[in-house]
Amino acid sequence: MVERPTIRMGPDDAPDVQALVAAEVARQVDALRQEIAALAERTPEDRVSLVVFSGDLDKLIAAFIIGTGAAAAGLETSIFFTFWGLSALKREKPPPLHKELKQRLFALLTPGSSKELGTSQFNFFGIGARMLRSMMREQGIASLEELMAIARELGVKLTACTMSMDAMGVTKEELIDGIEYGGVAAFMAAASRSRVSLFI
Amino acid sequence: MVERPTIRMGPDDAPDVQALVAAEVARQVDALRQEIAALAERTPEDRVSLVVFSGDLDKLIAAFIIGTGAAAAGLETSIFFTFWGLSALKREKPPPLHKELKQRLFALLTPGSSKELGTSQFNFFGIGARMLRSMMREQGIASLEELMAIARELGVKLTACTMSMDAMGVTKEELIDGIEYGGVAAFMAAASRSRVSLFI
Amino acid sequence: MVERPTIRMGPDDAPDVQALVAAEVARQVDALRQEIAALAERTPEDRVSLVVFSGDLDKLIAAFIIGTGAAAAGLETSIFFTFWGLSALKREKPPPLHKELKQRLFALLTPGSSKELGTSQFNFFGIGARMLRSMMREQGIASLEELMAIARELGVKLTACTMSMDAMGVTKEELIDGIEYGGVAAFMAAASRSRVSLFI
Repeated sequence: MVERPTIRMGPDDAPDVQALVAAEVARQVDALRQEIAALAERTPEDRVSLVVFSGDLDKLIAAFIIGTGAAAAGLETSIFFTFWGLSALKREKPPPLHKELKQRLFALLTPGSSKELGTSQFNFFGIGARMLRSMMREQGIASLEELMAIARELGVKLTACTMSMDAMGVTKEELIDGIEYGGVAAFMAAASRSRVSLFI
Repeated sequence: MVERPTIRMGPDDAPDVQALVAAEVARQVDALRQEIAALAERTPEDRVSLVVFSGDLDKLIAAFIIGTGAAAAGLETSIFFTFWGLSALKREKPPPLHKELKQRLFALLTPGSSKELGTSQFNFFGIGARMLRSMMREQGIASLEELMAIARELGVKLTACTMSMDAMGVTKEELIDGIEYGGVAAFMAAASRSRVSLFI
Repeated sequence: MVERPTIRMGPDDAPDVQALVAAEVARQVDALRQEIAALAERTPEDRVSLVVFSGDLDKLIAAFIIGTGAAAAGLETSIFFTFWGLSALKREKPPPLHKELKQRLFALLTPGSSKELGTSQFNFFGIGARMLRSMMREQGIASLEELMAIARELGVKLTACTMSMDAMGVTKEELIDGIEYGGVAAFMAAASRSRVSLFI
């Protein structure tokens, strides 16, 4: 029997085996790593994004209860205010503004601030809103203004939709401080990485 | 040439190499395993969560069509009823209740059960609701009450929002049997693990 | 000392070690691969699904702004039109149709096409809708009809809910060309694979 040449596994060779193993693992694991990276890119982050279209008192209360609930659960929460929802971000006493006729008429027809919002159902010229506020107060449930304050303390990001502001003739001077401004791209960027996105 | 000492790959040694290989694989694979576990924690489960804020007949029908559709597709489905949506869970003949004036007035203004719900548009004091129900019946589409029964058979979980119950003075005695009770934390826990969450 | 039999690491043996390594890696990696496959099945795709229930001009504008924004961001976007939302898909001049009384009455009460839609708030018999359209035009914001055209150019898939069509007595002849038809199963299939699903 002919002695065949051997690759001896000596102290110098062990690193070779290790290298061989490492290379093989890397080869097989690399495909997985790429798959995982692709998944990670599409996996929701610990975020919640709400778009508030409505200017109804009851829907805004619902939005802020969900928003503060999400933030309290440790989720990074953003609320985008668009169309009628912008009313919730209006200052109670805005500086005098020079608006065109249509914008002024629109401003007259839409609530001046969160205090003037009506309910989506059974509002009856404000009676429903007053009753809802009164019943919630008696039950020790936070008012919309308190919920907004809690939301901000919890770090909920409030964003005014700039396109809606343009369309409705609303200026930054009319809105409360400490909010952000953005369009649909900003909303979509946040929502597409969120666990939960709701249109309210 | 000096014979260098060798680690011979004998029957006793093979396990060592296997151990070395296993250790190296484990080392590299472990990081991946942690990445996957982190992703899994954020990856939606086979769940759908709906929050029904509206008390409109047409929106409730839409909610139950989506809810039963999701459950039929094998998704674990939860519907949370909040604000006006609570009306859908009211018994037709509740026991006599002692309510305060405001709660009684509110009860008068809100539908007594699913049978009394109006449509969100073109309701005209109930005519729209009756027409919608009649047209759906003629087309062989299930009524809201039938959809609710199907939902329950399919295991859709119906939850009444306890905060809304407090705010609106609605008690458990007024609501149908076999439902659950929970707040925003319960909704957020379900929604944040869901493939689809909708605010209706 | 007895010479023990050795497995020599010769050229012929190296493949054996490689095979051993490969097998060990495969064994450990296989479990991960299955975990990843299970995750992948539940991980959202680059999709957005909107269900438009509302027939309000302002909500439809919001839906198409979100839809075109999503499509522009590279997300495969589907909009399902159900109940009142179907009005947005109606042709301006449909062929004469033979409908039953109730269906004709319903058609009279609902908008004939996107041009006739009112706003969800402050519509005042169409004045709100005209004002909104006029203010948006002055700000250089696309009209609903322009947004719909942009959506279709961007490949947004528009689907009419067949069950709503049946319930409301709407036929394919009354709807615009180039749309798809589907029910709740089609919506749920798309939504459950989407990053963002909204009910509008």
